[in-house]
Amino acid sequence: MNFLEERIVKDGALKEGNILKVNGFLNHLIDVDITRHMALEFQNRYRGEYITKVLTIEASGIALACMTATQLNVPMLFAKKSASLNVDGDIYSAKCYSFTHQKDNHIFVSKRYLEPGDKVLIIDDFLANGQALLALTDIVRQAGAEVVGCGIAIEKGYQGGGDLVREKGYRVESIAIIDEMDADRHIIRFKGDDNIYTINNI
Amino acid sequence: MNFLEERIVKDGALKEGNILKVNGFLNHLIDVDITRHMALEFQNRYRGEYITKVLTIEASGIALACMTATQLNVPMLFAKKSASLNVDGDIYSAKCYSFTHQKDNHIFVSKRYLEPGDKVLIIDDFLANGQALLALTDIVRQAGAEVVGCGIAIEKGYQGGGDLVREKGYRVESIAIIDEMDADRHIIRFKGDDNIYTINNI
Repeated sequence: MNFLEERIVKDGALKEGNILKVNGFLNHLIDVDITRHMALEFQNRYRGEYITKVLTIEASGIALACMTATQLNVPMLFAKKSASLNVDGDIYSAKCYSFTHQKDNHIFVSKRYLEPGDKVLIIDDFLANGQALLALTDIVRQAGAEVVGCGIAIEKGYQGGGDLVREKGYRVESIAIIDEMDADRHIIRFKGDDNIYTINNI
Repeated sequence: MNFLEERIVKDGALKEGNILKVNGFLNHLIDVDITRHMALEFQNRYRGEYITKVLTIEASGIALACMTATQLNVPMLFAKKSASLNVDGDIYSAKCYSFTHQKDNHIFVSKRYLEPGDKVLIIDDFLANGQALLALTDIVRQAGAEVVGCGIAIEKGYQGGGDLVREKGYRVESIAIIDEMDADRHIIRFKGDDNIYTINNI
């Protein structure tokens, strides 16, 4: 197990409906040490790549994206989920289907802050069905900028979103890829590791 | 002018309805250098205080709070605006009146992550009418924890929220306090500085 997988097993929990809770260090209470560690990991994996901007989507991706941008010494841009930016007029927007709410949501980025020539690293905390990531790549495409790749903390490999994004030609680097988890059996299995680990339920 | 006031004058803009836009470095595109500079400023102003946690509210406060927590080497917790946490059952919630939408919103924090004994520094990007800040202090009070103080990037002094929070006995440290701004005249004035500065309109 790597540092993030270890932390998931130690402090994560499964709840009914096979939901992985990592509220204790990733997306509610933020452990700044592991966040910095993940940022360094993205920097290492994308070493040698020219990156001008980090892009994420509000809200839970912001801390990780901010730390990664700090590490790379480039600005960080976050897409907004509400249309308050609309009042500015000049925005890129993309559809993002929500399986949870079974409807299309939209995300927005001001045209002013994404330009042709930008080399973009997309960062997010979770990758499940890939809809949010694809919406972000669509916004980069609209701007005439280039996606260098994606950096994800936790990919739910069994939901197929990562493969969907990779099949479209994007590089996706996920620190922990979950191949299987089961709240009934209290277990989790990571890609590249045949062991099955016990994890708490809540 | 201090570093943040200079940046507001240089890259901020006023739009009709006396709205200050700082999307270019503070709450859409994030300049990591000025964010780190602000985090260091909060660290300096609260030097000697014992702080165990940084608390903010999603979404635009997260980057600044994350950088401040990194500087202080403590965890960062962000209150959520949607009740998705409700499914966890154990939450603190507080009302937060929105003047924009003229209704009560609620913010949520999981009880698990805020405890009696916590010494909390509340961080946010903007302070206007003070409703969000008061809701955050209310959540800290519910947890039996203590508010050490608040660190704000931009306080709209003329809206009175900062005074309201200070009158309740909380320490509020704002890096830039705007005493006056006027989109028609393209001007802005900061607290403690008699000069009037020209600012762009959009």
